[in-house]
Amino acid sequence: MTGTTMPMLETYPKSINLDRKRLAAVIDALNDCAQACTACADACLSEDMVAELAKCVRTNLDCADVCTTTARVLSRHTGYDANISRSLLEACATACRACGDECARHADRHEHCRICADACRACEQACRDLLATMS
Amino acid sequence: MTGTTMPMLETYPKSINLDRKRLAAVIDALNDCAQACTACADACLSEDMVAELAKCVRTNLDCADVCTTTARVLSRHTGYDANISRSLLEACATACRACGDECARHADRHEHCRICADACRACEQACRDLLATMS
Amino acid sequence: MTGTTMPMLETYPKSINLDRKRLAAVIDALNDCAQACTACADACLSEDMVAELAKCVRTNLDCADVCTTTARVLSRHTGYDANISRSLLEACATACRACGDECARHADRHEHCRICADACRACEQACRDLLATMS
Amino acid sequence: MTGTTMPMLETYPKSINLDRKRLAAVIDALNDCAQACTACADACLSEDMVAELAKCVRTNLDCADVCTTTARVLSRHTGYDANISRSLLEACATACRACGDECARHADRHEHCRICADACRACEQACRDLLATMS
Repeated sequence: MTGTTMPMLETYPKSINLDRKRLAAVIDALNDCAQACTACADACLSEDMVAELAKCVRTNLDCADVCTTTARVLSRHTGYDANISRSLLEACATACRACGDECARHADRHEHCRICADACRACEQACRDLLATMS
Repeated sequence: MTGTTMPMLETYPKSINLDRKRLAAVIDALNDCAQACTACADACLSEDMVAELAKCVRTNLDCADVCTTTARVLSRHTGYDANISRSLLEACATACRACGDECARHADRHEHCRICADACRACEQACRDLLATMS
Repeated sequence: MTGTTMPMLETYPKSINLDRKRLAAVIDALNDCAQACTACADACLSEDMVAELAKCVRTNLDCADVCTTTARVLSRHTGYDANISRSLLEACATACRACGDECARHADRHEHCRICADACRACEQACRDLLATMS
Repeated sequence: MTGTTMPMLETYPKSINLDRKRLAAVIDALNDCAQACTACADACLSEDMVAELAKCVRTNLDCADVCTTTARVLSRHTGYDANISRSLLEACATACRACGDECARHADRHEHCRICADACRACEQACRDLLATMS
């Protein structure tokens, strides 16, 4: 849990179209997942069997980039456009699903993949939960 | 046109599921749009009437982030997953549409908004053209 | 505190040249600061007096970008190069100092600037503490 | 050469502390290098000998992140702070040097490393040239 997410949401000077607690939970899940994916990509690169983890590295890099961008977009409320948030949340849930699936395939042999898979699952769920409240 | 996009695509050691020339054009349009949006956000901040441009700044920031992430994902071909590319291209076209529309509203008064709107339109079209070849 | 930073560091398969607990604290401070700065930039954009906050928005955007990149670089240990980490930590401390100073100027009127200034100060200190152990 | 860099610099509404042509050249070199590094990291992942390229992937990822962030910071002129630009240009030149050296080691066997090394060298030089005009 990032220490500043909720306090910053609480001090935003105008109204926010979404529930602030739920929003904070999604932003924290996104930042958590991005951190796990960046670290997992690097841990995979240091495994002796890196050749078998090439796809895992790639999916981790995609997922880290998409989660970081989604956290940024969801942290902005000025001139809110639901279409951008919604389509990006869909893309993010897709990336988290793919990365969670790929990491899960290596979870029994690599603890970093197991932890990362969990972070991806939690993030995918958080994105889908928020999407459900937006339609 | 970024000098390295096409040469790098040509030296990728495995097959690529998409047409390399079209892919290079989309990646260049994305990087071009990201650059325009980052610069437009800052130019808006320096206008005396910045209060009227707050939404424009925000949409520029979103669009820059989404375009940069999309360019990165499209530059990766290892362990290709069409679902990620497709959903991200949809989100990117949505962000470019929103930013192009917002910039266009200020294009008659601010030349940076006019140039940025053009870059957003071109990028949105490039994303949609690529999406059309993927379905 | 991001939930995955320390668990991911603990499962990295090779040795790490820096103390893992200290490293996790710096990465968390960087992600925390990036989150605060992204949110503060947007909160400033929604203030009626945004014209007086233009420099604050800009410095927030710089600080968010530099902190995110520094967190990523510090999360990688494969083929470690102390020169990159060190020079980036110096740049990050500089950006955090500038942003902390700018936000502090508005802290009495805007609570988001006060929280963000604190996050910048904490992050600057974390960067400098890590730098001190590297020389 | 990105199509929008120079036109956007020319339409910035206030004065800019640096020569606009030189600045545009640096920003284009940074975006070019970031694109090459992102693509080179992925091309390395698809090589059969990826285990020997693990450090190259890592350095590419660092360099891409640092170049993208530096391009963003240099594209902002509102509330200009020379200290941030200068320290980030130093860090960026350091990352480009490291990545250029690492890619050069593989340039005879991998054309993508050869092209990427050239982009890193050009970007390092552009950063150092700009730094020289700032002191």
